[in-house]
Amino acid sequence: MKIIVTKNYEELGKLTSEYLLGLMLSKQNRMNIAITAGKTPEAVYKYLVPKVKEKDYLNHVHYYNFDEIPFKVTKTVGITMRDLQNLFFIPANIPAAQIHPLDENNYQSQDERLANDGGLDAILLGIGADGHYCGNLPGTTTFEDFTSKVDCDERLKDRIKGHFDKEEDIPDYYITMGPRSIMSAKRLILIANGTRKAKIMKEFIHGKVNRDIPASILRMHPDLTVIMDEDTASL
Amino acid sequence: MKIIVTKNYEELGKLTSEYLLGLMLSKQNRMNIAITAGKTPEAVYKYLVPKVKEKDYLNHVHYYNFDEIPFKVTKTVGITMRDLQNLFFIPANIPAAQIHPLDENNYQSQDERLANDGGLDAILLGIGADGHYCGNLPGTTTFEDFTSKVDCDERLKDRIKGHFDKEEDIPDYYITMGPRSIMSAKRLILIANGTRKAKIMKEFIHGKVNRDIPASILRMHPDLTVIMDEDTASL
Amino acid sequence: MKIIVTKNYEELGKLTSEYLLGLMLSKQNRMNIAITAGKTPEAVYKYLVPKVKEKDYLNHVHYYNFDEIPFKVTKTVGITMRDLQNLFFIPANIPAAQIHPLDENNYQSQDERLANDGGLDAILLGIGADGHYCGNLPGTTTFEDFTSKVDCDERLKDRIKGHFDKEEDIPDYYITMGPRSIMSAKRLILIANGTRKAKIMKEFIHGKVNRDIPASILRMHPDLTVIMDEDTASL
Amino acid sequence: MKIIVTKNYEELGKLTSEYLLGLMLSKQNRMNIAITAGKTPEAVYKYLVPKVKEKDYLNHVHYYNFDEIPFKVTKTVGITMRDLQNLFFIPANIPAAQIHPLDENNYQSQDERLANDGGLDAILLGIGADGHYCGNLPGTTTFEDFTSKVDCDERLKDRIKGHFDKEEDIPDYYITMGPRSIMSAKRLILIANGTRKAKIMKEFIHGKVNRDIPASILRMHPDLTVIMDEDTASL
Repeated sequence: MKIIVTKNYEELGKLTSEYLLGLMLSKQNRMNIAITAGKTPEAVYKYLVPKVKEKDYLNHVHYYNFDEIPFKVTKTVGITMRDLQNLFFIPANIPAAQIHPLDENNYQSQDERLANDGGLDAILLGIGADGHYCGNLPGTTTFEDFTSKVDCDERLKDRIKGHFDKEEDIPDYYITMGPRSIMSAKRLILIANGTRKAKIMKEFIHGKVNRDIPASILRMHPDLTVIMDEDTASL
Repeated sequence: MKIIVTKNYEELGKLTSEYLLGLMLSKQNRMNIAITAGKTPEAVYKYLVPKVKEKDYLNHVHYYNFDEIPFKVTKTVGITMRDLQNLFFIPANIPAAQIHPLDENNYQSQDERLANDGGLDAILLGIGADGHYCGNLPGTTTFEDFTSKVDCDERLKDRIKGHFDKEEDIPDYYITMGPRSIMSAKRLILIANGTRKAKIMKEFIHGKVNRDIPASILRMHPDLTVIMDEDTASL
Repeated sequence: MKIIVTKNYEELGKLTSEYLLGLMLSKQNRMNIAITAGKTPEAVYKYLVPKVKEKDYLNHVHYYNFDEIPFKVTKTVGITMRDLQNLFFIPANIPAAQIHPLDENNYQSQDERLANDGGLDAILLGIGADGHYCGNLPGTTTFEDFTSKVDCDERLKDRIKGHFDKEEDIPDYYITMGPRSIMSAKRLILIANGTRKAKIMKEFIHGKVNRDIPASILRMHPDLTVIMDEDTASL
Repeated sequence: MKIIVTKNYEELGKLTSEYLLGLMLSKQNRMNIAITAGKTPEAVYKYLVPKVKEKDYLNHVHYYNFDEIPFKVTKTVGITMRDLQNLFFIPANIPAAQIHPLDENNYQSQDERLANDGGLDAILLGIGADGHYCGNLPGTTTFEDFTSKVDCDERLKDRIKGHFDKEEDIPDYYITMGPRSIMSAKRLILIANGTRKAKIMKEFIHGKVNRDIPASILRMHPDLTVIMDEDTASL
């Protein structure tokens, strides 16, 4: 595990975008990366977009999402893909042929598809204040799981409802790559910023690997890089 | 360049088959390999077939041919694929989904296809007494070429006619991955056996990189392993 | 995780030795491997020794041990290195310059030394009927540990005393690469044979990642290959 | 081969520095890189220095020079190492333990040393208007050479004399990693800027592999990235 502390959130975005660009350039053939939606990566994409937008020399880079919350009444895409489009795919003008959505219809073949595509070279992911990563929330998947459909009880529906404008859109389940799927990637990049993440990052780095903090298993990956700002590192 | 000299042709086949098996096992995700037809690899396939036949744990291995001589009146497959089927694919019962033929219809997209598949992890190839490898014969492709269609003049027709029972089947051209395509692979394994190859292997190892000996460029690859028997190494 | 079941113990040894040879040949530069002593690998070394003995083309392979039980009254080497010498290093005539002992004097720098040497390309390890691997026995190291000195209480002394002829030689501690150190390797190969290992392997493959079975964490490694014979796979 | 054209020299420096940083971050264990002195990389180092200066998370990066022109009357270091110190090592405050000089005393063991260190993960190099790279000038080394001592006739002395203030300092020879050594690296990054390099880059990209243009062999490397500005790409 490598730990990088940046001065602030802007520097986190800049450095992470440079790391990602370097990874992309370091492969001559197909490069597969799964990327995260949410608030944390906003600065990453801000710096990454101009680096990758309409660059012919990056047309070997293929993008994946690692979780998806579908609308109950099916729309073209779910919450994660919609957010990734707005955050990155649309501003960076990534060709559709390089985007490989994971959704409620194909999740059962996600692990096999990834293996056949050569595996993930990298995953960019965040961590929640509760220790979740991707859709692996406390009390949902276990360390042994591959890509899974997670049924939502009232507690989970409550957790995801913030993504939806209308209550009738909230689905009864969501999809996520499980711990085994994530750990199968060649390289993990975990980003965190702000004081709100300070407590969980302290536990992540110094605490025990345990099921109450799903992300704690990521420490065991042979190629994990943690990038956080000083606020997060304050504890 | 690593040079391995085996006691005899049987040992060459055995050792090469073990190297190939090791490469296959060393990847958890898709593994791409281009393999050679012809006389030299017969011992390799003899030992490799039982190692790979109906092994579920090798269903991530994908096979490619690197050249093809089509029949003039088109048949289902050309000379190379027919020979590979007889030598290896049929006895090893390799599923069709793991075999990716290169032929006269798709050669123009071969390099792009390989890049999209993640590139070749390895190529097993032989060398001719004239210094050719794959379909890169003296006076055909040049070092700068990617996968190419080679038009056959009378000299070349004379070279390839031994593959055909009927003269009317001899085509006006053949297909080959060019030097740039071959050099793009992650790893090259060059096998040679018998006194008939002794002179060319001496030139290959000690001589100059030059266009009269097409294979001479392979010495410049960062991951080349040469496996030959004592007869070939005698000079 | 790839699971390979061989017909019997001989086949396990043969296949594992071929995998190891393939890994060694697949690197042109330095290759680092940590290997296991004990009963399980005897068949592996039987087949591996002739493949590597006095082979100049394998002088880039560097060997490490991953644990050590020192004699209380210090001798030149401890139990693990003594066993590895007898099982493999001496019969294979491995030059001392390619052997890098871990012992009670240098264990604190083992992880840093390995990182500086380029990291381990592979670890060959066994599993105990109690779920231990290397010196990571139930109740000793925890998942978060790197290379450690493990103090031996009476229970542990009882466990290791079988290695010693004289009671006065039994030490108060032993050394082991911890879970984090082992998980940092690029590739893990776990071997098991016999009915005695059937129960633990069933738990390993189908059970939960948990601290009572230290080896259970190895399932989370992105490049783990399990090789066992039919007896072990019987459950 | 990947070709990247940047708007101008500043962008070339910025992009190349980001690629290098990404490569460094992409390895958890030892990372070996050989870097170039001269005018072309000045912008690279300008952007790279703040990215690597006193960053603990980059203490796994080891630096090498690939050629050296010693002073006739021996000083502590030669021309290349002196320039690298001024351009990069001193401003970036790189610890001496991470710098591995190649010089007239150790050049005969350079290739073996590199193999033992794990090989070069990357080489950053420039190209001369005459097609030279490193110390591989037209009429000096040949494609088959590893690290070599090049004796200087009057023509060569004339070429290198610009590096020296006093004529008595000009040596009778210099040291360079040869084509085989350079081609052995895992990854090559070739930078060029300005109209003065436009003609040679056109020949490099579209011309023939030939001994009059030593750098032409680099096109055959499986992982070459060319980064040049619009001025250089103008032809």
